[in-house]
Amino acid sequence: MSGFTPSLDRLIEQFAKLPSVGKKSAQRLAFHVLSMTDAEANAFTQTIEKARSSIKRCKICCNLTDSDICSVCSSQSRDKSVICVVEDARDVIAIERTHEYNGLYHVLHGVISPMNDVNPEDICIKELIMRLGDDTVKEVIMATNPTVEGEATSMYISKLIKPLGVSVSRLAYGVPVGADLEYADEFTLIRAMEGRKQL
Amino acid sequence: MSGFTPSLDRLIEQFAKLPSVGKKSAQRLAFHVLSMTDAEANAFTQTIEKARSSIKRCKICCNLTDSDICSVCSSQSRDKSVICVVEDARDVIAIERTHEYNGLYHVLHGVISPMNDVNPEDICIKELIMRLGDDTVKEVIMATNPTVEGEATSMYISKLIKPLGVSVSRLAYGVPVGADLEYADEFTLIRAMEGRKQL
Repeated sequence: MSGFTPSLDRLIEQFAKLPSVGKKSAQRLAFHVLSMTDAEANAFTQTIEKARSSIKRCKICCNLTDSDICSVCSSQSRDKSVICVVEDARDVIAIERTHEYNGLYHVLHGVISPMNDVNPEDICIKELIMRLGDDTVKEVIMATNPTVEGEATSMYISKLIKPLGVSVSRLAYGVPVGADLEYADEFTLIRAMEGRKQL
Repeated sequence: MSGFTPSLDRLIEQFAKLPSVGKKSAQRLAFHVLSMTDAEANAFTQTIEKARSSIKRCKICCNLTDSDICSVCSSQSRDKSVICVVEDARDVIAIERTHEYNGLYHVLHGVISPMNDVNPEDICIKELIMRLGDDTVKEVIMATNPTVEGEATSMYISKLIKPLGVSVSRLAYGVPVGADLEYADEFTLIRAMEGRKQL
């Protein structure tokens, strides 16, 4: 019993279920929602409903999109011989921000994680394999996160792809640009050593 | 242009408008909302709509409630001769948690703040004055926040109340229990000195 009136308690409870929202933040968000004008509140709930009903996965790359085919897959200017495989739609945005990559993407929507009961068939791996059927794609770049599960997923997929005659690469590991060596963890340093380049 | 599909951009934008939600958190919340089941998402939006339509101000004390009269005002066991005046419904909960106060409350829903264009008539002051009409209430305890605006509001209200023959008091200032003197700010220490008690 928090002491608030029941509807307010339920509202706070809903906000507290959101990721990284604690009890105090949930209260603040609930009070904010109560203080919104009707127009603001309607915009808020309707945008949620609209987004949930209209956002779907691109039929080719599984990225989130409002149309059947996302803007990258439908673009004429992208290099269709390279696919960069990422875990999640946010990773696409991160790579797009570099303005250096001009190929296509494939969004897995997760990583293989037996601990969390996520098996290969639960993420978009078969959709990726289906894209490699003809000879258009020459290279697949694995850009899953550098975590144990990201690594394992990347290894699993590369084993499936190699027999198809498509070259598979992995993002380089190393010390982040602008970071301080002193604060780099030992695994990153080991990988940076291993991947050293002749000057 | 964030690079996300338009509906997703709009969803992120809605979350970014919430207090203390930055751009990254807004993205995380938006992705979370997209990953909810239909039942969870409906519960979320409907709880917001339900709370906004059913929560109103108690006709007596202006606290937030689902009914016309809040549970404190309608309780038979509360001491109706004391009113504790607070800025906001959360302050009621904080005082209720002490289990020491058994009087009534009055929620102002804000403080007088000319800088933010909040004048005395914008907060629930007249509702408070109206409660002091008969002789039931003997004391009003001002428990606005110890800020400049909370102080000013408290002074303003006490000047209105005193002529009505009702005694007005103010929460004591001092060092918080369990805190370290070393970290107390000078104003708190000055007030704690001024309010010192004979042992």
